[in-house]
Amino acid sequence: MYRSLFSLLLVVAVTQSTLVAQTWQSLPDNVPAPSANLQMPEKVELGKKLFFDPRLSLTGTVSCNSCHNIMEGGDDGRPTSMGINGLTGERNAPTVWNAGFQASQFWDGRVASLEDQSKGPIVAAPEMGMPNHEFALERIRQVPGYKQEFQQVFGTFDSIKIDHVAEAIAAFERTLITPGSRFDDFVEGDASALSAEAQQGMRLFDEIGCTECHSGPAFNGWTSQDEAPEFVEFPRFDSSHVEMYELKKDRGRFEQQVQQLIAFLSSLEGPFPEITLPRIPSNPGASIISESNSAP
Amino acid sequence: MYRSLFSLLLVVAVTQSTLVAQTWQSLPDNVPAPSANLQMPEKVELGKKLFFDPRLSLTGTVSCNSCHNIMEGGDDGRPTSMGINGLTGERNAPTVWNAGFQASQFWDGRVASLEDQSKGPIVAAPEMGMPNHEFALERIRQVPGYKQEFQQVFGTFDSIKIDHVAEAIAAFERTLITPGSRFDDFVEGDASALSAEAQQGMRLFDEIGCTECHSGPAFNGWTSQDEAPEFVEFPRFDSSHVEMYELKKDRGRFEQQVQQLIAFLSSLEGPFPEITLPRIPSNPGASIISESNSAP
Repeated sequence: MYRSLFSLLLVVAVTQSTLVAQTWQSLPDNVPAPSANLQMPEKVELGKKLFFDPRLSLTGTVSCNSCHNIMEGGDDGRPTSMGINGLTGERNAPTVWNAGFQASQFWDGRVASLEDQSKGPIVAAPEMGMPNHEFALERIRQVPGYKQEFQQVFGTFDSIKIDHVAEAIAAFERTLITPGSRFDDFVEGDASALSAEAQQGMRLFDEIGCTECHSGPAFNGWTSQDEAPEFVEFPRFDSSHVEMYELKKDRGRFEQQVQQLIAFLSSLEGPFPEITLPRIPSNPGASIISESNSAP
Repeated sequence: MYRSLFSLLLVVAVTQSTLVAQTWQSLPDNVPAPSANLQMPEKVELGKKLFFDPRLSLTGTVSCNSCHNIMEGGDDGRPTSMGINGLTGERNAPTVWNAGFQASQFWDGRVASLEDQSKGPIVAAPEMGMPNHEFALERIRQVPGYKQEFQQVFGTFDSIKIDHVAEAIAAFERTLITPGSRFDDFVEGDASALSAEAQQGMRLFDEIGCTECHSGPAFNGWTSQDEAPEFVEFPRFDSSHVEMYELKKDRGRFEQQVQQLIAFLSSLEGPFPEITLPRIPSNPGASIISESNSAP
């Protein structure tokens, strides 16, 4: 409790001293790709197909998009995510939208890259449920329609490794970004992009401490200068926050301030990119999903 | 056995007498819509969202597209289809591609329209698993983002009925067609659209009896003049077919004929339409899927 209170005081001090210095940044037009996995259109297109292909799950029913549904918010709208056979995990799926602008992946930030993240759910029992990566790779090798693309992008099909699959999926995920919000336009110089109310909300967003965690172009603490993620205690603020600001005493002008914050937050929503459905290669005449759904 | 043989003889007779008269038809550019559910762009767009929305299933994990995956062959590539909680039915999902060109729906043709078909899986226990249609409608009513569209298309949101949902989904499904194959071009007068080999295969396709069942522009027995479906015994041909044509005696020219038929059948594949991902309205801040996945 003492520690939390101390942290909060420190936070307030930092926030106040940097109030004017807060630097707003617009969302970049592309995600920096690691040198070991450079972006190329063919790789992105292959990754898109793999992202949408439910055959990467044991039962042939759960794709990456099942839980990270980019038709909706990039997640699944469930309290906890559900994988094969109705199994649920302990957490819900984080959004994949703008995930490339994070310094770490998974809710607990336990891996550094989209590549490393993408390998996990494939072999997680309550997610895509493959017994091991080799089993998933063998499934992919049974789809002749993937041969040409893997050959073109990675120079092999019969000998593909899980890293190839991960690199293609990560390359596609780096395209799932939403620059072009009204906020982005404002930061880039279009003063008319934000209403006076939203500008008040923007000032408040900094003033009351939101930017302590939600800073940077993606409002997730990430900046392009970051090499490693920074981890902080969660929850960042405890009930002392409520007491200190007497949030329950008198809503007063807060009612107006809430509207200003909403106006500002609404301006952060970038346009939904037009994404065409991939054509996943089929293997007509036979099913590569066994009726028993069991590993061999 | 006698009956089958008799049928086969009849078939051969009919086929030979109509060899020249066989009328090839190209796939129409649109599916005739029933007068009670005329096509309109807003209805199609709403139906597209509903078709892709997994919240129409009890667990929030199975959409129409889960089993009728239009990114692939319009089906799910499984031996039998899998719905919520890993449950499987007795059959696999028929393709939704060009389903509007059928005189009946489901493998046993038990309903006449796409509208009637679309209502079934929503409340089928091993498919989308909703306890009843009203439960599904209440789920939809919990998504504010659907309000404006239902209001615009059907004039109501609070009082939507399952027929509205079915009509929108069916309207979208009537756009899932693949005209423009090389066969279509050939039938419409472009003599260069089919190779000599494919033209031989086309003649064979009629001559050996394929068109007995696979006639009409969609090769499913349907023509635009059909008012009711015609049901025939299945399998249509039994082993007497093998004996009559001595199929196992000497493959001889059949090896060449198989190539011709393949060349012809390959020409039936129409272009994969470019379909952009719908944006399914989200309900941020709360999940409308209960953790227990149980009906109230």
